[in-house]
Amino acid sequence: MNPLEIPEIVIRRLPLYLRTLNLMAAQGQTVTSSQEIGERLGISSTQIRKDLSYFGEFGKQGTGYNIEYLREQLRQILQVSQRWKVALIGAGDLGRAVLRYSGFEEGGFEITAVFDKDEQKIGRQIGKLKVLDIAKLHEVIREQGICIAIIAVPASEAQEVADALVNAGIKAILSYAPLPLRLPSNVQVHYIDPVIGLQSMTYYLSPEQI
Amino acid sequence: MNPLEIPEIVIRRLPLYLRTLNLMAAQGQTVTSSQEIGERLGISSTQIRKDLSYFGEFGKQGTGYNIEYLREQLRQILQVSQRWKVALIGAGDLGRAVLRYSGFEEGGFEITAVFDKDEQKIGRQIGKLKVLDIAKLHEVIREQGICIAIIAVPASEAQEVADALVNAGIKAILSYAPLPLRLPSNVQVHYIDPVIGLQSMTYYLSPEQI
Repeated sequence: MNPLEIPEIVIRRLPLYLRTLNLMAAQGQTVTSSQEIGERLGISSTQIRKDLSYFGEFGKQGTGYNIEYLREQLRQILQVSQRWKVALIGAGDLGRAVLRYSGFEEGGFEITAVFDKDEQKIGRQIGKLKVLDIAKLHEVIREQGICIAIIAVPASEAQEVADALVNAGIKAILSYAPLPLRLPSNVQVHYIDPVIGLQSMTYYLSPEQI
Repeated sequence: MNPLEIPEIVIRRLPLYLRTLNLMAAQGQTVTSSQEIGERLGISSTQIRKDLSYFGEFGKQGTGYNIEYLREQLRQILQVSQRWKVALIGAGDLGRAVLRYSGFEEGGFEITAVFDKDEQKIGRQIGKLKVLDIAKLHEVIREQGICIAIIAVPASEAQEVADALVNAGIKAILSYAPLPLRLPSNVQVHYIDPVIGLQSMTYYLSPEQI
């Protein structure tokens, strides 16, 4: 099937399945079922089977899914069997917290360059990386062949940074800045916004809890 | 319609619509259409009209939506017309970045208490708040009548913190820790995980970009 014919909402659930399988594998489990994955995620087992059926047959009726096999298939579908290089823009509190996040490598990512415009931060060592001058953004991204970036700068600077990233050849942006970015249609974007997460829960709270 | 009969995936899109409308309003715009909202979000106008139709008639054929009216309706549906008090657990790099996030108030939230277990952080002032000893979690949450919490502690401590939050009466948790929490079924949870965001974009990147 043409990759673009699969609904985006299906694609967005696959990383959740993969994370659940990774956790099961870490706990020594080798086999699972759509029921079990569904219970962990609050998604129906029918939905999970339907989502996976876009990509093939991954389990047998009655015997469930081999976790290792399904993980590898999902990694291939999501193209995270290899490791993607990622540029991080912003070395403030948020940027440092992102750098310390421990799940990137297992997820298929490695932050290989961090940039800031603040002269007090440029040159500082954070973990394995030295903070680079944002003036070198284009050069370093081209040199390293990076096509994914994380924006962790204040909202007022986010669009300018995004423009520079697009100009340097970046094709996917994860943004922590609380505003929509203007981007060419061939550049993917995903926003990390705590308010969106909170607002999707308040609907279910009783009004008397306010 | 019974609130629980509306698909969760519809509920999860409403905050995105509200954010888009907020931005339009901030730019002085007063009227919009499902086409325009859809173009900004990469969602079809049919989907947007269908989602909104669960809750009533918000626009007229040919004249579009009154932005102010639709914003207020969405705020009421999502129960964010009032402001919810929120407890933040963790005053490290990530917690400080969350505190500095500027979108909470407009979104319907106010962080009214921040906790840490580190004696070096307890008592420190961050913005308007003084970091409280996590030993006071239960007492302060009950006193303030808080039912929403944000977890910004290391993964190894997240489950213990979640247990304490549930015990104190918290009904919705936004977690930045990269692991699934074991929670009672009457407690909502939403995870903020950069890897999930990145993996839902790599699917669309050309393999030669790796």
